[in-house]
Amino acid sequence: MFEARLTKGELIKKVIEALKDLVTEANFDISATGIQLQAMDSSHVSLCALQMKAEGFDHFRCDRSMPLGINLSSMSKVLKCCNKDDIVTLKAEDDGDSINFMFESKDQDKISDFELKLMDIDSEHFGIPDTDYKATVTMSASEFTRICNDLSILGETVAISVGKDGVRFSVSGEMGTGNMTVRDNTSSDTKEADRVEIDMEEPVNLNFALRYLKSFAKAAPLTDRVSLCLSRDVPLLVKYEIPEFGSLSYYLAPKIDDES
Amino acid sequence: MFEARLTKGELIKKVIEALKDLVTEANFDISATGIQLQAMDSSHVSLCALQMKAEGFDHFRCDRSMPLGINLSSMSKVLKCCNKDDIVTLKAEDDGDSINFMFESKDQDKISDFELKLMDIDSEHFGIPDTDYKATVTMSASEFTRICNDLSILGETVAISVGKDGVRFSVSGEMGTGNMTVRDNTSSDTKEADRVEIDMEEPVNLNFALRYLKSFAKAAPLTDRVSLCLSRDVPLLVKYEIPEFGSLSYYLAPKIDDES
Amino acid sequence: MFEARLTKGELIKKVIEALKDLVTEANFDISATGIQLQAMDSSHVSLCALQMKAEGFDHFRCDRSMPLGINLSSMSKVLKCCNKDDIVTLKAEDDGDSINFMFESKDQDKISDFELKLMDIDSEHFGIPDTDYKATVTMSASEFTRICNDLSILGETVAISVGKDGVRFSVSGEMGTGNMTVRDNTSSDTKEADRVEIDMEEPVNLNFALRYLKSFAKAAPLTDRVSLCLSRDVPLLVKYEIPEFGSLSYYLAPKIDDES
Repeated sequence: MFEARLTKGELIKKVIEALKDLVTEANFDISATGIQLQAMDSSHVSLCALQMKAEGFDHFRCDRSMPLGINLSSMSKVLKCCNKDDIVTLKAEDDGDSINFMFESKDQDKISDFELKLMDIDSEHFGIPDTDYKATVTMSASEFTRICNDLSILGETVAISVGKDGVRFSVSGEMGTGNMTVRDNTSSDTKEADRVEIDMEEPVNLNFALRYLKSFAKAAPLTDRVSLCLSRDVPLLVKYEIPEFGSLSYYLAPKIDDES
Repeated sequence: MFEARLTKGELIKKVIEALKDLVTEANFDISATGIQLQAMDSSHVSLCALQMKAEGFDHFRCDRSMPLGINLSSMSKVLKCCNKDDIVTLKAEDDGDSINFMFESKDQDKISDFELKLMDIDSEHFGIPDTDYKATVTMSASEFTRICNDLSILGETVAISVGKDGVRFSVSGEMGTGNMTVRDNTSSDTKEADRVEIDMEEPVNLNFALRYLKSFAKAAPLTDRVSLCLSRDVPLLVKYEIPEFGSLSYYLAPKIDDES
Repeated sequence: MFEARLTKGELIKKVIEALKDLVTEANFDISATGIQLQAMDSSHVSLCALQMKAEGFDHFRCDRSMPLGINLSSMSKVLKCCNKDDIVTLKAEDDGDSINFMFESKDQDKISDFELKLMDIDSEHFGIPDTDYKATVTMSASEFTRICNDLSILGETVAISVGKDGVRFSVSGEMGTGNMTVRDNTSSDTKEADRVEIDMEEPVNLNFALRYLKSFAKAAPLTDRVSLCLSRDVPLLVKYEIPEFGSLSYYLAPKIDDES
């Protein structure tokens, strides 16, 4: 028997919105410590890794570890029926073939429950090596979204180059070229949300496909901050940490051909 | 000569928005007591009945009863030119071939008038028998809209089942099944708008085509509350009462095949 | 060397939004006194004339007069990357083949720069004769936009007729006819934004193609007020003045065939 109850039910909704464009179906791996999901995007270029800790839920019970194979597009549709302030409860029997979603309004006047059929999905587990990144940039998640969307009007590939004082995002295309630079402002009294922190051992300059970054950026509603972790010849890690709940991480290999 | 003036001109706009998806053209029957309209939807499955009382208008004059045949899509376009706070006046000559709409801004600085050609439409009058419904549910109109829209992601047919304590709306489809239950909360101190009142002689469980309910639900902007009136083997009545003005009622026969 | 810096960078964005539907590419004529642009719309029916005064900028330097040929659709895309409160700087070398846009956030934490390739565009200069218009109507820019959009549901040609007390906009089509009348209200205590001023030597009644007026009306976000200047047999002038910055003017010849 698996059962997890979350007062801030909206979190689950936002997690699925952040995944569903990249991943069509995936196994949610349930265990006593929480829920994990790892999946390549459908074109097998980027990797998503979700972690929701048992302690992040108001109630969490898992008698037996198991994968729950779910179609994310169906799950997203079901979650559209979850109101902003609803309490969400997930349930599955140990040998069942379905997962149950219950949405309760705060005053209990309206209760919705949905049963989705589970799917058999081939498990993919990727050993993601612990990497000591050469440069880490932590910045406003919504600002990162804006940069990815804005620059994509000019071209398909962005060069991210991290120096001591700032990060430059550059795109070049038929229309012309564009650069956006955000500066480390930890020394000034910038408000928390707009702070840009750059932690750099050595300068890094790498190229990435903008369309994947734009998909990753859909996780912005989950949390205020995003971290970009870069090293030469190693996939970029774009990480959204959700305080006291878990994290959503995306990995994307640099484009080698265009590397400058 | 027919002339009707309404300070809350927006009401007319909302009435037409609530009808125009179901009904393409219809006769507005004008008489000394007010305006009435009865029409089957274009697929001849559901019936709409509109009633606007003469007393609901600021000024109402009708010298001779007559039908005004109007294309609702054209009328909706004309009403798009009516601002939120405009005063609306409708006018038609006794033997004229057009109806005149006048929109006045509150300060009289802007006046718009539109003339629409009238149409000859075969009159349909349906004797709707007075029914003693076995169960009546009165609830928030916007909540009912949300339930119809949400459940339609799962399937085409909704089972509405009324019991003493609540109403359950159930849909089942390829993706899975869903239920939404709202409870009678008249005994608690729920605020007026969210109140759910269930008046039941015997339990009722009937199936309906969701697409019609979704169309009916477009009347929600007209008023805060909706009543669902149900009896076995009798069409469902979905009624939006507009205090001191009139009402908009929809009738829909149950789906017999799928009845459980 | 040309360099112009504008704290209210949004103005440039709004100017391009107001032009880009009519004009695909055009020369911005740079001189010591400011920036000018004249262009026929792509169907060669209407004429746009933009004027931005050097004094309207926070900093303005132009060593040598020159035309900068720009694709307005590309420029509009680049300006989408300009945030609401950004400071905009435009730069071009005297013999360069590109123009540079820089957007700085107020706190300087984010700087974007874009380089657009310049184009060779055949210069068109139109001697617009000073006209002594018989009637000038000054009214709310947003109200004019609304009238153009509303009336276009009925037909393609609007008759504008100016009398002593008001202006009437009339359209007639298959569905029916519509008139909107706004009255001179300078004598009442109408608030500035809603004021309608009519300055008339003789009554004027002219027909115009609504689709062009709708395009002109996209300049409304630039400023609160619009002036319509009319005389028989002379193009209508629709003028948006931007206080202390410049103006955007549109000229459109009357439709002769339908003139009444």
